[in-house]
Amino acid sequence: MNISQITEEDFKSFWPTLKLIIEAEETYAFDPQMSFEQAHHLWCGIPQVTYVAKEDDVILGSYYLKPNMAGPGSHVCNCGYMVTPAARGKGVARRLCEHSQDVAKELGYLAMQFNSVVSSNDIAVKLWQKLGYEIIGTIPQGFRHKKLGLVDSYIMYKQLNP
Amino acid sequence: MNISQITEEDFKSFWPTLKLIIEAEETYAFDPQMSFEQAHHLWCGIPQVTYVAKEDDVILGSYYLKPNMAGPGSHVCNCGYMVTPAARGKGVARRLCEHSQDVAKELGYLAMQFNSVVSSNDIAVKLWQKLGYEIIGTIPQGFRHKKLGLVDSYIMYKQLNP
Repeated sequence: MNISQITEEDFKSFWPTLKLIIEAEETYAFDPQMSFEQAHHLWCGIPQVTYVAKEDDVILGSYYLKPNMAGPGSHVCNCGYMVTPAARGKGVARRLCEHSQDVAKELGYLAMQFNSVVSSNDIAVKLWQKLGYEIIGTIPQGFRHKKLGLVDSYIMYKQLNP
Repeated sequence: MNISQITEEDFKSFWPTLKLIIEAEETYAFDPQMSFEQAHHLWCGIPQVTYVAKEDDVILGSYYLKPNMAGPGSHVCNCGYMVTPAARGKGVARRLCEHSQDVAKELGYLAMQFNSVVSSNDIAVKLWQKLGYEIIGTIPQGFRHKKLGLVDSYIMYKQLNP
């Protein structure tokens, strides 16, 4: 598995995965109707950096990294990770997250925060906990899950030691 | 005190207050260097609605209201409030906040969330608690206060009963 900065071609290949994930409305608080252009802006335009994981030129997943807040809050970063359906269960999310922590430290961030980890997304919650992220807050019924209705979402946080 | 939707003229009058508050770097995780245009976009462009409080045509304060997240998170709103230096201690923030809760309910929001209430901002923390907002999470050293250095920031939340 090889992790590199995303190219325009990469994003085109990744778009069906992003679309599938947001349309499912089970894990991401993104507009499920967004267009290719809006998704490109959100995933590659607004963030500071965006990476893709590939194996034999096939995209396995992607993540973005950006400051979670501006100005006096800009020492804490925020990331979002997505793995293609075909690459699930192979440790891709873990590799992307570890990579993002290294990149975040290089960029001078002191901590990383996830603002909306859906409580029903057991696999993600457990993986982030294994990687040292703590639940620092719970938003009561913060997420309208397509199948489960309103469920809590977690704010998770990890200090990044240099 | 009269609360109405912000006009272009209102924003021009409000801009020195906004600038003062973000340059102080004590309460808002906004870029302290932002231009008038950037501030206008942030305060009046991105939000769903923006209001000002006035007395005898003098601006006392302003707030914005927007969805805190998109798609499956868009039933929770987020607001930011600012009061002009001359109008402090007169209950303006309370009036703005109460107004914003009414507007939020009219717009169909189920809850309101503040993502970064600086822990050293006692007056704000106590006021929000008095108005029914709870601290649902603490971001360790989430805010780089200009005078105090790194301080915690709180995530606060209130369910809006119809």
